[in-house]
Amino acid sequence: MPKIIFSLFENEHLSERIRKGINAESGSYIKRQFPDKETYIRILSVVEKKDVILICSLDKPDHKFLPLLYFCKLLKDLHAKSICLVSPYLSYMRQDTQFKNGEAITSKYFANIISSLVDKLITIDPHLHRIKSLNEIYNIPCITLDASKLISKWIKNNIANPLLIGPDSESEQWVSKIAKGASAPFIILNKIRLNDNLVEIVVPKLNKYKDYTPVLVDDIISTGHTMLETIMHLKMASMPPPICIAVHAVFAKNSYRNLKKSQIKNIITTNTINHKSNQIDISEMIIRELLIKSGSDK
Amino acid sequence: MPKIIFSLFENEHLSERIRKGINAESGSYIKRQFPDKETYIRILSVVEKKDVILICSLDKPDHKFLPLLYFCKLLKDLHAKSICLVSPYLSYMRQDTQFKNGEAITSKYFANIISSLVDKLITIDPHLHRIKSLNEIYNIPCITLDASKLISKWIKNNIANPLLIGPDSESEQWVSKIAKGASAPFIILNKIRLNDNLVEIVVPKLNKYKDYTPVLVDDIISTGHTMLETIMHLKMASMPPPICIAVHAVFAKNSYRNLKKSQIKNIITTNTINHKSNQIDISEMIIRELLIKSGSDK
Repeated sequence: MPKIIFSLFENEHLSERIRKGINAESGSYIKRQFPDKETYIRILSVVEKKDVILICSLDKPDHKFLPLLYFCKLLKDLHAKSICLVSPYLSYMRQDTQFKNGEAITSKYFANIISSLVDKLITIDPHLHRIKSLNEIYNIPCITLDASKLISKWIKNNIANPLLIGPDSESEQWVSKIAKGASAPFIILNKIRLNDNLVEIVVPKLNKYKDYTPVLVDDIISTGHTMLETIMHLKMASMPPPICIAVHAVFAKNSYRNLKKSQIKNIITTNTINHKSNQIDISEMIIRELLIKSGSDK
Repeated sequence: MPKIIFSLFENEHLSERIRKGINAESGSYIKRQFPDKETYIRILSVVEKKDVILICSLDKPDHKFLPLLYFCKLLKDLHAKSICLVSPYLSYMRQDTQFKNGEAITSKYFANIISSLVDKLITIDPHLHRIKSLNEIYNIPCITLDASKLISKWIKNNIANPLLIGPDSESEQWVSKIAKGASAPFIILNKIRLNDNLVEIVVPKLNKYKDYTPVLVDDIISTGHTMLETIMHLKMASMPPPICIAVHAVFAKNSYRNLKKSQIKNIITTNTINHKSNQIDISEMIIRELLIKSGSDK
């Protein structure tokens, strides 16, 4: 089946790796803003009867959404056979319930509208909380890939004597898996979230790990407050400067600069969101998934 | 039937006038952005079984769209009886056809998604080109109100000896109506659009209007290039500095500043989009429309 790949919003580098890996046609289009900030889109490639792979990470999602909607509707108007949205970082995973009366369950609404636009979704380590699987809120087939093996491998290849540190109890399952893959010990901290911007961290005794390199691992670095708080505690416990690793380089506000300025050795992320800290490439995982699917089509 | 009114995105002033005019309850909600730029919305008022009027002008539409979608879906989840979207300025009216192969017909896609979110739309002087009525693209009842009478009245009350000037042949019907209402003569220019930012204007002979005050009227001021070009031609024809009037104060980029710096007497707009140039109040028109509808409900 002929495949064509398009990259929306700053994912060109990742998109090109995936395109080569699955031997797909490179889709060509024009996207620009009119002076009044309305969006213009024109697809130049022929998409009729083709399986379209649309690469679009959904960090800072609000301004991306309407262009994405237009792109998908246009693909259908131009008789694309199917649309597979590859969104390495998937947004609106936090508000999956009403904590207070009258709250918009944005996870559900976002899942609902995305499900109406594309035929399939592939993402990496979505920030799941109370829901266990994307298929509880998405009405389309969803594939969630897991970057833990790639992170384990990177740690094994690059860090001597690592001690993995998970920020909160929610991370335990994931961090323990990475630690096992890296043949390294791990500890889990106790994080108490006070509000959007403020967290309190409880660090266990670290005396027996004095000779290890602390490796803080989390799925997302957003405000970076969890990491900064932990870094301070590690310093107080006379541990060496840690290496910070995350799957998704969200980096809200000045968090990347603030982390770089703090007592750390390095910040490493995967390329689910394009950022200068990207050092772990997730394209192979997506290629494998797309090739399996092609195989099963035959 | 109990009515409740909410104002999204900088329309509070207009909204409050309308609320008083129709004697509706003022809706209360919280809208904020998480540090990672995702939107949080919580409606505090009870909306169950109420007719909701949602005031939201749709200039600079892309970043507004997802919050608007969430707001509408939340209203339905909270069992609002109906949602009437009052969008004094309606966006995505330009691209209503494919001028070239593969272009997204954003007018159609936008109309389609808005129609799925609300039960009724009220707007003012939409920028119609090839389509004659919003109901060709919207699947919900649409009311389009006409600001020409209010503009005629403002001209009559504020300008001595006005000569109305329409920018292009598309504006003729509308400008002639305003001129008639203001008991003033009018001329229509010939505008040739070279691209998004560049227009060429042909001005007819103006000798017999030397003692008049030129009044440039247009539905929208976006880049302001049409007005700037016309102002230059009027100056070359030794006409006095004109007054510029528009319904919608879109003012892309630095267009307001550029117009203010040029040889003009003043810039006047209606309050369909909140802007310091607003001097003509359109709230009465909307109030009248909403009260007529209430009347027919009984």
